[in-house]
Amino acid sequence: MNPGRCAACRYLRRRCPPDCIFSPYFPPNDPQRFVSIHRIYGASNVAKLLQQLPSHLRTQAADSLYLEAQYRIEDPVYGCVGLISLLQQQIHEVERQLAMTQAEIAFRARHPQALESNSLNNVGNPSFSNQASSWFM
Amino acid sequence: MNPGRCAACRYLRRRCPPDCIFSPYFPPNDPQRFVSIHRIYGASNVAKLLQQLPSHLRTQAADSLYLEAQYRIEDPVYGCVGLISLLQQQIHEVERQLAMTQAEIAFRARHPQALESNSLNNVGNPSFSNQASSWFM
Repeated sequence: MNPGRCAACRYLRRRCPPDCIFSPYFPPNDPQRFVSIHRIYGASNVAKLLQQLPSHLRTQAADSLYLEAQYRIEDPVYGCVGLISLLQQQIHEVERQLAMTQAEIAFRARHPQALESNSLNNVGNPSFSNQASSWFM
Repeated sequence: MNPGRCAACRYLRRRCPPDCIFSPYFPPNDPQRFVSIHRIYGASNVAKLLQQLPSHLRTQAADSLYLEAQYRIEDPVYGCVGLISLLQQQIHEVERQLAMTQAEIAFRARHPQALESNSLNNVGNPSFSNQASSWFM
């Protein structure tokens, strides 16, 4: 056994050549990294993908392939597309909250009487807040 | 040539068996769908992934694999991990805006004098808005 072989060549039970395409991105101390990638993409597809990139971009490519493989192993149906949907929902929710809060500020600027009669102590009151926002939604 | 073959079997130049694993998810009228998936994952990895899922989840899995493959073809370095980073940045930015706007409302509730001296006409004024928010950040 050659202790200098990278994680990919160890897993594939082959000699690790000096110009191994996997070696810089799959060190022997992190065997799981290659196992995950191999399971989802296969060794030859990963090699092809890395080879078509300039060498200064290969680390980022190997990292992102590993992340995607991990997501797919954890969620075989949606993979990281599931996370994308979740993040998009989160953005819509925060944008909705922001629009409501901005509408509330605009309402108060245009209706100082409403502010006086409700008194500024109500500003932080959720029921006032919801009411004011609902007029603009 | 058998016109009933699915896009995968046409691409792989093989007979399309009645129980073809690809056939329900790769119709012959959308050949590009299989070409993309094949380029990134390889046919046998996609077949394995679909086979391990119950049949009612395979359409979603084929769709998400196709999306991920498309992202990877468009951005070979980051794939859909690039989109995930972008969405996370977007969430942080909208959350920051929301926190500033909420801090502004809270400030006005606690400092009615400040509101009077600035007059409520300034509420929509960005410079006032930025100043008020900056006190809480």
